[in-house]
Amino acid sequence: MRNFKAIVEYDGTDFRGFQWQHRARTVQGELETAIARRMGEMSRVTGAGRTDAGVHALGQVISFTADTRIPIERMALALNGALPQDISIRAIEEADPDFSARFKASSRCYAYLILNTKLPSAIWRRFTGYSPRPLDVDAMRQAASQLIGEQDFAAFTNALQPGEPTFRDVKYCRVAVWRSMILVRIEANAFLRGMVRNIVGTLMEIGGGSYPPEHLRVIQASRDRQMAGPSAPPQGLFLMKVRYGERKNYARREITEEQI
Amino acid sequence: MRNFKAIVEYDGTDFRGFQWQHRARTVQGELETAIARRMGEMSRVTGAGRTDAGVHALGQVISFTADTRIPIERMALALNGALPQDISIRAIEEADPDFSARFKASSRCYAYLILNTKLPSAIWRRFTGYSPRPLDVDAMRQAASQLIGEQDFAAFTNALQPGEPTFRDVKYCRVAVWRSMILVRIEANAFLRGMVRNIVGTLMEIGGGSYPPEHLRVIQASRDRQMAGPSAPPQGLFLMKVRYGERKNYARREITEEQI
Repeated sequence: MRNFKAIVEYDGTDFRGFQWQHRARTVQGELETAIARRMGEMSRVTGAGRTDAGVHALGQVISFTADTRIPIERMALALNGALPQDISIRAIEEADPDFSARFKASSRCYAYLILNTKLPSAIWRRFTGYSPRPLDVDAMRQAASQLIGEQDFAAFTNALQPGEPTFRDVKYCRVAVWRSMILVRIEANAFLRGMVRNIVGTLMEIGGGSYPPEHLRVIQASRDRQMAGPSAPPQGLFLMKVRYGERKNYARREITEEQI
Repeated sequence: MRNFKAIVEYDGTDFRGFQWQHRARTVQGELETAIARRMGEMSRVTGAGRTDAGVHALGQVISFTADTRIPIERMALALNGALPQDISIRAIEEADPDFSARFKASSRCYAYLILNTKLPSAIWRRFTGYSPRPLDVDAMRQAASQLIGEQDFAAFTNALQPGEPTFRDVKYCRVAVWRSMILVRIEANAFLRGMVRNIVGTLMEIGGGSYPPEHLRVIQASRDRQMAGPSAPPQGLFLMKVRYGERKNYARREITEEQI
């Protein structure tokens, strides 16, 4: 058995998310079908991030095992030939037998694009969130800087299991502007369900002047999802990169592997 | 009757081109339906460029007349509300009664995006042509520079009417690179049918080393479509801008308005 690590790109528009679902078109489902077709047998695919329906990826990482003789340099072409056009393998390599795209990941990087124009854009609609209200980027930056570090992000998650740890370690959260496009980039060891989109939705409220940047602390301390802004729409979100450096040991607040 | 000039953006993927066709989804058809719905009566829409099926626009210009009391500042929102998501009005103004988006245009600017990577991209596939063969951008530039000026472009058109003038005045044709993306920009007073995509297809052949840049002269002199490269696919092409400056008088080789 060989173990593989691949970088996968997808246009999330027509998927019900990454994770396999019965009778729904998912990224994992399409990948498993393509692998089965090329390798002759079913293999379970593990993804580093379980992106929601409509969310895209430029650098999702997957791992899977297969008993195949296809040489590694022909593997990407072989799989791409069996995949639909909205998923593409961008790189593939053979990995250590114990490599897992999910459990070995040390951090995930996401990017969110917001188009900030008076009128909507037909071209960008598939790949951006949209705000006709002018956004104050400095206020968004000020708020974003408060998210850095190991903190409790319970206020920014949609659904919590009882006893689920809610601390995550945010490495950076940066807001950049290019013409009428606002780009939010965030990296953390791991994310809670809906966390990036809820953070971006809250930053948009702050940018639009609904409340001042300092109010973010109040939202976070409340641990109450109702206090945060609405979830930003999925089509603006991209899983950009997954890192596999050294994994920090998160002491008492440790996030168990099941919950990453 | 009021006469309007509007800038229109569209994602061309799901259209059979700009021009109205019986029982086919076209940009003109959707615009006319939206105008009829908002203004209460049918109006013919004139577009500056008749883009082909699958071709996009960031700056198409249209004109139409309507007998409406909607104030100009509310017009774009009103029309966007009646348009499908893949078309959007980006700006609208009241124009002189004799303004025609097509017949008053002095030039059109197009851009073509080519993704030049070993493996295809799921995200970019809707908005780029694709070449897995590494392209020599310097060779493409050298060839592109030969296209400038008032010349006979018969070799780069798909279908000619008998007696149709084939001279066009190319203002510039520039090739830029950003990472693995190649951008070809071209402006001319007007274009023959299929001209931009046939030029880009030929530049791609030159970039790929099929023949040297100087060969472009031979192709052009032949006036034979068979000599030029294949047409580049429509999804990489964008109508970027239409200019309405002074229109040059193209003496004996004059291009009649019907053929613009």
